[in-house]
Parts: sequence; C-alpha cells; structure tokens
Amino acid sequence: MDAIRWEGNTLFLLDQTKLPVEEVWLSYTDYRPVIDAIRTMVVRGAPAIGVTAAYAYCLAALEGADLKEAKAALAASRPTAVNLFWALERMEKQAAACGGNPETLIAEAIAIHQEDVAMCRAMGHHGAAVVPDHARILTHCNAGALATGGYGTALGVIRAAHEQGKVDMVYADETRPLLQGARLTAYELVTDHIPATLIADNMAASLMAKGQIDLVVVGCDRMAANGDFANKIGTYSVAVNAHHHGVPFYVALPCSTIDLSIPDGSGIPIEEREADEVRTLYGVQTAPRTVEVYNPAFDVTPHSLVTGIITEKGVIYPPFRENLQKLFG
Amino acid sequence: MDAIRWEGNTLFLLDQTKLPVEEVWLSYTDYRPVIDAIRTMVVRGAPAIGVTAAYAYCLAALEGADLKEAKAALAASRPTAVNLFWALERMEKQAAACGGNPETLIAEAIAIHQEDVAMCRAMGHHGAAVVPDHARILTHCNAGALATGGYGTALGVIRAAHEQGKVDMVYADETRPLLQGARLTAYELVTDHIPATLIADNMAASLMAKGQIDLVVVGCDRMAANGDFANKIGTYSVAVNAHHHGVPFYVALPCSTIDLSIPDGSGIPIEEREADEVRTLYGVQTAPRTVEVYNPAFDVTPHSLVTGIITEKGVIYPPFRENLQKLFG
Repeated sequence: MDAIRWEGNTLFLLDQTKLPVEEVWLSYTDYRPVIDAIRTMVVRGAPAIGVTAAYAYCLAALEGADLKEAKAALAASRPTAVNLFWALERMEKQAAACGGNPETLIAEAIAIHQEDVAMCRAMGHHGAAVVPDHARILTHCNAGALATGGYGTALGVIRAAHEQGKVDMVYADETRPLLQGARLTAYELVTDHIPATLIADNMAASLMAKGQIDLVVVGCDRMAANGDFANKIGTYSVAVNAHHHGVPFYVALPCSTIDLSIPDGSGIPIEEREADEVRTLYGVQTAPRTVEVYNPAFDVTPHSLVTGIITEKGVIYPPFRENLQKLFG
Repeated sequence: MDAIRWEGNTLFLLDQTKLPVEEVWLSYTDYRPVIDAIRTMVVRGAPAIGVTAAYAYCLAALEGADLKEAKAALAASRPTAVNLFWALERMEKQAAACGGNPETLIAEAIAIHQEDVAMCRAMGHHGAAVVPDHARILTHCNAGALATGGYGTALGVIRAAHEQGKVDMVYADETRPLLQGARLTAYELVTDHIPATLIADNMAASLMAKGQIDLVVVGCDRMAANGDFANKIGTYSVAVNAHHHGVPFYVALPCSTIDLSIPDGSGIPIEEREADEVRTLYGVQTAPRTVEVYNPAFDVTPHSLVTGIITEKGVIYPPFRENLQKLFG
C-alpha cells in the first residue's frame, strides 16, 4: 500500500480525505497546489509530508520556480511535523550542490522516499521484537503506509509483528476529529487482513482496565531531545491511561523526526485547526454553530510515560536524553 | 429547558436524536412506542429514562393494558441505568395500592417528575459549594436538563455555580459515538448563555496538562454500594486523567441512581450497542464497512478515582461504602 507516487515528472497523491469510501488519485505538476494538499490533509503523517515536500521541491525545479520561495512556502504548510523541514533542508542542500538540476533533485527525492520505506521496515524489524505473542495492540491515529513512504512506523511495527504471527488483535482508536484511525488505520488493517477492531477514542481506557491491551504503539510528528514528543491529539490521553494500567507504551519514528534543537516538549509548536472540524463532520452539523471550540491537532506526551522509542537503528530505552544523543553520535 | 411533558393524557418527548439542528416533539398515547424511544435514545439520561418510564406506565394503565407485561417490556428497553427499574417499581407499588387507577398513577408519575427536578436543584445547591471561583469545569456526555426531569445533575451543579458567578468556562467533551456532549450539552450551555467550549474527547487530557481544568463533574447511570459507578463511555478515561493531573473529580446523582444491591462496579451490567454507531455518523460512512467494532455504551469508574459524590442530600466523601450506607440508613 502506498499513497505517494512519482511518474513522468508528475506527483500523484492518493486523496486521504476521501478514504475509505473512495480511492481517488490526484496529480500535480505545479508545486503550489501541493501546499494546499498538505494543509487540507490530502496527504498527512510526518514522514509522508516530508516525502511529498521533497517531490514538490522537484516540481518547483522543473517549473523553473524560485527554489528559495518554493521551500519557504512548502515549509509554511503545517507547523508541527519536523520531517517537512528536514526533507526541504536536504533538498536545498542538494540543489546547492547540483545547481538546481531537476534530474539530480528528483533522484534525491526518490532516495528520501525509498529510504523512508527502508527505515519503516527496519523499525518494524526492531519493534516486532518487543511485541509479545498473542498481542492485543492499541494504536492511535494513522502511522501506517499512508502516513509514510510506505509500510508505516507504528503500523510498520504491527505489520512486522503480524508477519511473525504474534498479533491477536489491533485496536484502532478512531481519532477525532478527522477520524484517521477509522478512515485510514482500519482501512489499512482490513486491506492487509490483520485482525482489527475499531473503537471510539474514549473506549481505550476501559479495554485497558479489562486487561485487553498488552501494548500501545503510536507514531510521532516531532520528538524533542529528551524524548518528549508531539503526536496526533489524544496520544497523551492514551499514554496517561497506559501508564495508569501498567501497559507498555512505545513510539515508533525515523530519526528524521527527532529534533535535537528542542530541549523538551514545551518547545514543540502545536497547530490549532478550524472549529468546524469539531462542530461538523463531512459537512453535517453535530453541534450548535455558535459554540466555541478548542481544536489542537497534536498534543505532547512527556518521555516519563514512554517505555521505549522504536527507530530504524533499534529500540531506545531510558535515560532517553543520553541515549538519543548517542544515537546521533 | 425540559424534554419530557405530560399534557392531556399524552406523553410528549423532545426528540434528542435531532438536536441541536431541529427541535421536534413526539407524542405518545400508547406505551409500546415509548420502549423504542428509550432504546433509540429519543430520550436518554438515567433520570429522564426513569421519568419517561413512569409516564409510559400511565399510558399502559389508560389503555387498560396488562401492567405487569408493560412494566417488563419497559424494563427491558435498556439495561444499565437503574432509575428505569426504580421508577417502574415505584409505579407498580402505587398500582397495587390504588388498584391500577390511572388518575392516581398519573399523579405518582408527575410526583416522580417534579421530585426529580427538585432533587437536581438540591444537587446544584450542594454541588456549587465545591466549585471554586473562576472555575474551568470539564463535563462528559450530557447530564443536563435533557437527561433529567429538568435542570440536570452534573449540569445542574454547573448551572447553580454559574448562577453564583463562579464559572469562567465549561469544557464539554463531545462524547463519541453519539455526540451527546456536542449535540446536547453544548446546546444547553449555549441556550443558557453559560461560557462553553466544545472539545473532542481526546483533548481533555491536554487541557488538564496545561492546568486549564479546575474540576470535573459528570453524571451517573448506576452507582454500586461502594461508590463505583457506571456512566457514559469515556467517563473512566476522564477520571484516570483527572487523577493523574490532581484535578478534583465529582459525580452528581440522585439517590435513586444508587443500587445498594450491587456491592461494586463489576456487578453493573454494561450495554453494548451496534457497530454502525461507530462506523457511521448520521448515515455517513466513516470506516470500512467490514471492520469489527467494540461499542460499549458505558464504562465503570472505580470509587478510588472519585473526590466526592454530589447528591440531593449533600456531598459524600470517602469512605464511600460507609457514607453511602449512612445516607440510606
């Protein structure tokens, strides 16, 4: 399963706002509409946004656009996921080295894309080792093939554990307000024939209380140097509940999601989104039109609630600040 | 604000499934369709279900129906809220005393209804005393005028505290899957000009982490003898998060919601509802049609997470088993 393709100097994105009801591919030959695609979540998930931005940078080069301007505009699309900035920095460095040659830049974007898939598979390999037999795993939002170049971070771990016959059930939080769990994670799991049960976000605690969750694994949009991390809103509540019930809580991410320039989670910028994402669903009004809404897209989970960090280089345990430093050498 | 009326030997129910978009009153002169109204949540909330069942019992008497059969059928409509059984027992006792005289039964149902409103006002009075000045209060689901004979249990406490000028903000969890918080609590708060902010259920923890919640107050569908209680799914997660963040957590309920015959929460039957409540919303598909769903309507919060129990007789503190016994003693 994939959601990002590059063919004939054209970027193709699977419109994730239409899933699971429709599978619609959109095509882009101009970098500007890609900014909107990121903002409106046609493509979402920190690694997938990074890959998409790299390809959009290639479109800018092919159009002969001002690359500095293109980079700035792409970087302003969403504020929290750090892979976006990481990928654009890498493309800009390559552009400086090759004089903006489109073919070289395309090769670089393809490399970022392929490396992302390879990193997900490596994360899956390392992460599967911490999954017990007959595991009942909870995940939040979508950190799957659709959120990455392919295979997934948290869902990559689940896929690898499932390939090893270890997974009895995956519980997917639906993840309000945009329902990435219901729409995307459930879709990936059902498509891959991995046993899946969909729940509303507020049901996870009651499953934990009944001893029906053996492990939690989630993705990440940005991790600070001490292991605090931002992920889709609701992740923090899951972490608090996992802690309360003694359920191991893992976060899976490529090293490109770690931002050592931020000492702790308080420094991660958190995007707030439109009120109508909560007051309506698919255009259907679900609340009074005049009620105020608080709609942060992410929350920050402190490292004290994290059992282990699953990366493409291995699983990291506390003390996280020291061990993350070591990872980067 | 009210949602249940009795006029001219007819029961009128405000269709809560249509709120906040439409205000539609349905009328009943036969008790049988009232069973469906309870099951499909035209009327919901433990005290409101009790009042409705009492009026439906009067309809059965007016029709000359078999009262024993009517009582059994009404009691089978929903399993968790104990007020349903409490109200039907009281009506049956009255029927035995008056030989099934409809006028006497109607007077009894009206008494149940009026007592419920009076109890809510008493709860509001006692509960407002525990609310600090400039309070930012979180509530889950709808325990308001719509869930009771009028005024509300948890929202009754909020209303009373607001009348005393103590409430800076009420945060309403939207309460998936049926969105009673978004549809009903937000509607009541906006209508009554109480400052209100709607959030998705998974955002509450992040507000607590920021120190933006001073107090939680929720309603209750059934409380066991030790203070463990069932309430709308997601209440338990809020309680765990409140405990983690040191936020006082109160539950407001009339004594008729306390079931001393059940020693602890493990004995409270929990209704599971249809998968499509989670896979769709207002008929719109939000998840793959074939994905499994776990959809409990309630969860159980252990008394260890409860700061105080607000009743019409006063606020009860630990040890709850002893102090609940005293209340009935």
